[in-house]
Parts: sequence; structure tokens; C-alpha cells
Amino acid sequence: VKRKERSVEEYVAGILNNERTILAQAITLIESNAAKHTEKAQRILHELLPYVGRSIRIGITGVPGAGKSTFIEAFGQFLCDKGHRVAVLAVDPSSSVTGGSILGDKTRMENLARNPRAFIRPSPSGGTLGGVHRKTRETILLCEAAGYDIILVETVGVGQSEVAVRGMVDFFLLLALTGAGDELQGMKKGMMELVDAIVINKADGDNKKKAELAKEEYNQILHYLRHATKGWETKAYTCSSLYGEGIEQIWEVIERFVQTTKQSGVFEERRREQMKDWLHAMIKDYLHIRFFQHPAVQQQLPTIERDVMEGKQPVTMAAQQLIRLYEQT
Amino acid sequence: VKRKERSVEEYVAGILNNERTILAQAITLIESNAAKHTEKAQRILHELLPYVGRSIRIGITGVPGAGKSTFIEAFGQFLCDKGHRVAVLAVDPSSSVTGGSILGDKTRMENLARNPRAFIRPSPSGGTLGGVHRKTRETILLCEAAGYDIILVETVGVGQSEVAVRGMVDFFLLLALTGAGDELQGMKKGMMELVDAIVINKADGDNKKKAELAKEEYNQILHYLRHATKGWETKAYTCSSLYGEGIEQIWEVIERFVQTTKQSGVFEERRREQMKDWLHAMIKDYLHIRFFQHPAVQQQLPTIERDVMEGKQPVTMAAQQLIRLYEQT
Repeated sequence: VKRKERSVEEYVAGILNNERTILAQAITLIESNAAKHTEKAQRILHELLPYVGRSIRIGITGVPGAGKSTFIEAFGQFLCDKGHRVAVLAVDPSSSVTGGSILGDKTRMENLARNPRAFIRPSPSGGTLGGVHRKTRETILLCEAAGYDIILVETVGVGQSEVAVRGMVDFFLLLALTGAGDELQGMKKGMMELVDAIVINKADGDNKKKAELAKEEYNQILHYLRHATKGWETKAYTCSSLYGEGIEQIWEVIERFVQTTKQSGVFEERRREQMKDWLHAMIKDYLHIRFFQHPAVQQQLPTIERDVMEGKQPVTMAAQQLIRLYEQT
Repeated sequence: VKRKERSVEEYVAGILNNERTILAQAITLIESNAAKHTEKAQRILHELLPYVGRSIRIGITGVPGAGKSTFIEAFGQFLCDKGHRVAVLAVDPSSSVTGGSILGDKTRMENLARNPRAFIRPSPSGGTLGGVHRKTRETILLCEAAGYDIILVETVGVGQSEVAVRGMVDFFLLLALTGAGDELQGMKKGMMELVDAIVINKADGDNKKKAELAKEEYNQILHYLRHATKGWETKAYTCSSLYGEGIEQIWEVIERFVQTTKQSGVFEERRREQMKDWLHAMIKDYLHIRFFQHPAVQQQLPTIERDVMEGKQPVTMAAQQLIRLYEQT
């Protein structure tokens, strides 16, 4: 069934009125790479700009198996019960690594998905270059315009996606498991310096004692690290998503974080810097894409690269030659 | 006194003959940003390509006060005494941070500077963007062509310069002090995962016991981290640059590293990857420079940036507008 194309005005009105179908369609439009969609999407975003920015943006990461879905389900329900409206977005670092969209499965958060105060949107696995991340940022804005006041951005702890997510959220939370030592060896280095809190999940039953120990271990290691946010000390906490224990405490931590950083101006300053960084990152991406998609560059690059790697051509000369190809043809 | 301009052939012959004055002048030429110098420098490099690559490139970093000059002086003398020829290059991360060229002072390594088997070249503080790092890589090649078989690249442990140095050396060494805990808090995170060895300097006199303790501390922490080089376990060592103790051991470690990685192919593979990364980094730099130096972009950027930061214009639209300005005018 081919659906009737909506006008920019219809999209804008529908989103501001929080019509979920229209919001979902607008996100699809944003995610599209077709030129005509891009233009329309940008016009919609432009109209919505006065209505964005009034949420708390929370990033959630953790290695596969750390219980991200269970945590988000419990945390999201808790927030909805408190009267918030919660949007859950997933940054899927492309399916090529994992052999399938890990986060594409909506049924993971069954209860939250049925909650009328929640909106869950899995991200498409759209390659790396600017694709997924750029679209997630714009999706955040659409959800804010639709009235969601808590945005949860979920990402799997692999590769570069955490750095990207740190650049689009106010508060960043790392879900961890017991056995910090073992886990840390597998954890991407630098991870702990990106986050504002570490939450040891599954602190229930036989596991409770181990979770407390892991918390101590993490707190000890955090001593050696820089904090992600000026004026905020990153600490470790425990919770049980299964029994809802500790969930309230985590929300209190986030509320305190928001209060502290808003008072100090760090909150607003980070948001402004994120916008600027976003612009510069996007310019870099565009330039990069335009360069490497250039036919003459594509034709010559493999040969020139090989010559450079084999020491037959100086790098500067090779780079200049390629740039000349790009600019002159 | 205006000196006579040398021809490409004179430069090449002089460098291959290890005439230090000509080598020094060639490096100055390489470092120059004037277009006519760039072209000449590239022609010289091109001629020298068959003679480069046959050295061991060693990066040395550490926080200010870790005793880098004293270590390099002792280590360099040791290597010269063993019959090696040693070039010392400094990557100065620009004087704007430190209020003066920290490394510009040749007299720091008085004895080594007088050794006929050694060549010391402080780096100019030439801004960040591609400047210093690009030139250091090319300076390494010139020194190799002049017959230096050990290249020491010194950098101060601040900011991004370590990542750049890691990308141009075979072996990377971190000089540290006792009191690992305290120091680690100040140390740039990720640092320990970039290096192939940590050397606790000043392990002499009253300090010897503390140095041994620090070594243990570092080894413990290294357990949690990824190693910088495939098939090589990064470990901590102690030495006293003042009394020359431990210097020989460090050289043995490096020799073992070179042997191991050459056998496994990791050495050659890293060199090839470094060349490719260098080419891509340079393309990125060039594109960036050409974009931001474009008159129309320069004129419009501040306004567009402000609009984006204040939420008046969507980022994608702003980026597209700037790229259009760049390409069409």
C-alpha cells in the first residue's frame, strides 16, 4: 500500500500533536538518503527547532550481555510511572560486525513498548560514515518536539559509537556486570572516562554480594581516571533491573547531575559545544564523502596508495596529486 | 648573510654523504610552508626514498619532569658507544599551551649534542593542523637517508601528540616517575595503551625502592589494558639515567621487540599501515585547510556557527550551505 505523501505542514502539526505514526514516519524520512527526502526532512526540522532541547538526554551503553534492554525496560517504566514521557533510540553500530541488527528487535522491551507514554525506535544499521550518528541526533530533536522529556540513547559497547553518543547526550551511563577485573580487560579502553555513572546490573540473589564487590572495584579504578563532566564525580552504583531495586537511586543521581550542571552552566555549555562539534563533524564527513566518491579519485587511489605503502612515492606528493584530481576534474 | 640556494642534487648528495649542515638545511626546507620550498623538498624526498626506512624508530614520551632529556642523553650516548648513529627529533606540541618552546633548547642534551655520531633537531612549534607531525615524519626519512640507524622521537605527554607519534614510530616508550598512583591521575588516559614499555626513571639513591614499587604498580595496571603491539606484552622497567643503570636492559628490550615483531611480520605491517594512514590523514588535513581557508566560507562561518549553536538553523542545512559556498565560489 503506497501511502499518501504528507506535506511539511502535516508532519510538523502531527509531531507537535504527538501522533506516533507521523513521528515514526518523520524519522524514516530523516533516515532516508534520497535527496528529495533530505530536503523535506530539513524543512520539517527547521520548523520544529523552537520546540526542541527541553529533554534530558541520557546515553546508555554496556557490553553485550550487560542487560541493557532489561535495564531500559525497568528504568523506562519507572520514569513513565513518574509522569515522564520516554523515547528510546538505539544507535546500532551497523550489522556488519555482529551479523544482524542486535537492537532492531522491538520485542526486547515488550512492556515498555506497550506503554502509551513511551516511544521505542530502533535505529537502522546504516553504515558508519556520519550515517547512523547524524540521524540519531536529528531523531532526538524530533522526539523532543513530540513532547518526550526523557530521551534514552542506547548503544552497544563496541568501537567508536560511544564517543559519538557522548557527543549527543547530557548524561552517559555505563551498564556493567560483576567481575570488574575480567570485564575491564575486554572493555574498550577510555570507556570509563566517557561516562557519568557506572551501574552494576543484576545485583540480586546470589549475585548481590559480587555486585557490591564489583562496585568497590570500579570505584577504585575510577579514582585513577578523569571525569567525563566538569564538576561531577563519576561513581559506581548497583541495581537489579529484574526486581527494580536501585532504579530510583539512579534517577536521583541523574536529577542531581542535571541540577548541578545546570547551576554551574556546564549543562548548557556542553549542549552548545555539541552543536558546534556536530556542525564541524558533518562538514568533515561531507568533504570526505565528496572526495572519495569523486570518479577520478576512485580510479587513481588504489595505485597511489600502493605506491605510497611500497615507498615509491612520497606521501605529500601523493596527497597533493589526489587533491588536484578532485579539484580540477 | 643570505646563503646560496642549493640545488636538489646538492641536497641529495649532501644528505647521503651525511653532511650535517646540509641535512639541517634540508629539514628547514621541509619545514617551510612556502610553496616553492614545498616543491623542492618533495623532489629531494623523492630522490631519497630508496635510502629510507632502515632505522629503528623509537618514540619517547612522559609528563614534564619525568626526565626525558636526561634519559635521552644517557640512552643516546649508550647507543653511540655501541656504534649506532642516533638522531633525536622533538615533536613540540606548539608553544601556545606552554608559553614557550619547551624542547627548543638544544643545550638540554649538551654531551649528546657534541657527539659526532648524534644529530639533535628540535622541532619548530608550528601549530597543530598537520604541521608539526607531517614534518616530523619527513624529517625521520631525511635522517634515515643520512645514515642514522636509530631515530628517537621525543614528545611531551600533553594532548594529541602521543597518538601522532605512535603513528610514526616502531617502538613507543613512556618515561614515568615513582608514585604511579598520583602520576596516573594526571596522565592522559589511554596513554598506557599506546606504549610498548614504561620506564620508571630516577631509580637511584633513596628513590630506588619507590621506583621498584611504582614498577609493580604499573605492571598491575597494565594487566587491565590492551597492548599497543600485537604479540608484545607491554611491561614496566626501572632505570637511572643519572648513573646509567638499566639503560642497557632497555635497549635489550627494544632489540627483542624488533626481533619478535620482524619475525611475526607485525613490524613491516605496521610500517605499511603507517604510510597508508599518513596519506589519508594528509588528505583530510588538506581538504580541511582548503575548506576553512576559502574566503566565502571564512566570511559566513561565524554567523552560521552562531545560528547553529543557538538552535536557529538545523546542522545539516548549515553544513550543506557551507559546502555549497566552498564548491561554487
